[in-house]
Amino acid sequence: MDGLGGLARAQTLRSELEAASVPNLDRLAVKSEVGLTVPVGPGITPGSGPGHLALFGYDPYRFDIGRGVLEAAGIDFPLGPNDVAARGNFCTLDAQGNISDRRAGRVPTEISAKLVERLRAIKLDGIEVFVEPVREHRFVLVLRAPGLGDAVSSTDPQHEGVPALEASALDGTSEPTARAVNEFVKQARAILVGEQQANGLMLRGFAKYPSLPSFPETWGLRAAALAVYPMYRGLAKIAGMTPILCPGGMPEQIRLIKQHWDEFDYFFLHFKKTDAAGEDGNFEAKYHALQEFDSFVADLLALNADVLMIAGDHSTPALMAAHSWHPVPFLLHSQFCREGNAMNFSEQECLKGSLGIFPAVDVMPLAMAHAGRSQKYGA
Amino acid sequence: MDGLGGLARAQTLRSELEAASVPNLDRLAVKSEVGLTVPVGPGITPGSGPGHLALFGYDPYRFDIGRGVLEAAGIDFPLGPNDVAARGNFCTLDAQGNISDRRAGRVPTEISAKLVERLRAIKLDGIEVFVEPVREHRFVLVLRAPGLGDAVSSTDPQHEGVPALEASALDGTSEPTARAVNEFVKQARAILVGEQQANGLMLRGFAKYPSLPSFPETWGLRAAALAVYPMYRGLAKIAGMTPILCPGGMPEQIRLIKQHWDEFDYFFLHFKKTDAAGEDGNFEAKYHALQEFDSFVADLLALNADVLMIAGDHSTPALMAAHSWHPVPFLLHSQFCREGNAMNFSEQECLKGSLGIFPAVDVMPLAMAHAGRSQKYGA
Repeated sequence: MDGLGGLARAQTLRSELEAASVPNLDRLAVKSEVGLTVPVGPGITPGSGPGHLALFGYDPYRFDIGRGVLEAAGIDFPLGPNDVAARGNFCTLDAQGNISDRRAGRVPTEISAKLVERLRAIKLDGIEVFVEPVREHRFVLVLRAPGLGDAVSSTDPQHEGVPALEASALDGTSEPTARAVNEFVKQARAILVGEQQANGLMLRGFAKYPSLPSFPETWGLRAAALAVYPMYRGLAKIAGMTPILCPGGMPEQIRLIKQHWDEFDYFFLHFKKTDAAGEDGNFEAKYHALQEFDSFVADLLALNADVLMIAGDHSTPALMAAHSWHPVPFLLHSQFCREGNAMNFSEQECLKGSLGIFPAVDVMPLAMAHAGRSQKYGA
Repeated sequence: MDGLGGLARAQTLRSELEAASVPNLDRLAVKSEVGLTVPVGPGITPGSGPGHLALFGYDPYRFDIGRGVLEAAGIDFPLGPNDVAARGNFCTLDAQGNISDRRAGRVPTEISAKLVERLRAIKLDGIEVFVEPVREHRFVLVLRAPGLGDAVSSTDPQHEGVPALEASALDGTSEPTARAVNEFVKQARAILVGEQQANGLMLRGFAKYPSLPSFPETWGLRAAALAVYPMYRGLAKIAGMTPILCPGGMPEQIRLIKQHWDEFDYFFLHFKKTDAAGEDGNFEAKYHALQEFDSFVADLLALNADVLMIAGDHSTPALMAAHSWHPVPFLLHSQFCREGNAMNFSEQECLKGSLGIFPAVDVMPLAMAHAGRSQKYGA
């Protein structure tokens, strides 16, 4: 559950998870190992990349995936070794050229896809240009040429009422990249000038494809990823998992896991609604999302996996309307569970669980042990 | 609160903090994030230097401040790059030259200051000598010459009934330093020979000025330190904080924080009485000190800081009359607190808090997150 952890509202002293009616999770928590994961480190608020990488067993300080790469992988764009990818946002500029809406009013995907098509007319000297739509105001820019560096500053000023920034190179090999980016933006402005909503754009998260050790090879697990949102599918793919398309959400995700049960040893099921509600600052929507997830717990148990884990990549308290650093409730169910003292599945009760507060990067070794797939260490 | 943590007496099964009546801390603990900090590492009893450095965010294994430097900085002695500083103690020697009182009966500062003045007559070949009074039996010796090493063994045998030790060099560049130290001690003995109480001295903690990353630059916080005792002011100064003199203790410390509120982003308030009572093995004095601190909690809260932390550099259980390795009760209050299950502020209840048992060096990242001063990590 993306953004699983929350914070209590002052009025009721209950978090989203405590306010929600999640009887299936509660029952499961009592007979499982529960605790709280620290996604990256104490006080560190993770982006989606590090939060997931840690749960997959990668040290999030050591392995980094740029936003551009995440976005590109999420739309199945085949990034090559000469590619630098960036996340693009359409925005609205006022008459003075200042940003009046950083998301261009979340312009519908049909419209932004057409704008992207027009941006494909842009030509850069010696550099191949790819522009691909993602969703609403978001698109991907890929620049392809040998030797392009990816250390380029963001053109997103992070607030409105000011113009977009010039891109600048943060190292020598990235200077041609920065020049190309600024030229792209200039030509794009000329193309978009007549648009009402999406008459400007910002680019950030410039990155080349990272080289991560393969998750299937590291753990000896044939691994599948079932995520509705492209970015999480992309992330899993970078880790070497096999993405399985599942636009229908939970019922389809569970059906597809059943269907592919014998082909894989590990299934990563991503549930986005908890995070989306948290990011929107919508406390009620978040506990409804938790309740929706809870209604599928029986189906998940019926899969009869050796190990079932329920985890989050980070907390997204509705109170903060943003990701946060707070540790995330975690549950691991197997036939080798040592039960703790948690009475339900919540932030407060998980503190009493048999796992305590522990780094998310330890989740995979724990899972392997509970699955009987670890070797004894030492003689 | 220096030396905050304690141990329960067998008769009552209550620690100093549990025996004390600290209603304000107790109430605050229920609505705060609480836990226990491990100052340096499990089973490691820290001195004052590492205990504080960890709370300021410095890895106490990596950064070390010699005792001599702490003492010198605490009296505002401007140490330069050619200086080796040592902590000096006057002691009482018997007719055989054995130490009969390691603290010279805690000789009053007025008397020891006069003795220090007489020691200034000592001349060493090619080395400038500075002797400065500190408090009671304590003084600072600084030797100044290019290339002096600071790897010199202590002359303090750590118990009575034996003579002081000879200083010896622990590396090549420290051989001239060790010779100078032994010559200084010889001349000092001749000067002090007629004294009743303070007729001998011991030197330890030889050290050069360390280079620490600046706390204000590291965290982007203008930082002030309010400590009655010189050593803690000195420590804070080495970290780059601005010391504010506050001889009047808590009421003055709080008044000065208010007065300087707009000039700084971070205030380090040091309360010594808890540690002093613990070191004296005085259980009652320690819980009275805790009660005294508790009476100022409302004033601290009234400052309305983004983040209020109540922490200790180490435990000093009255039962042990010494620093100890036991984890230290810790409390962090902000608007983004996730409450745990602690019912009051004590060693036992802090175990139930939302922070668990965690390294003291993680306190600053947590504080920065709660203050909304951290960036998201990764995309």
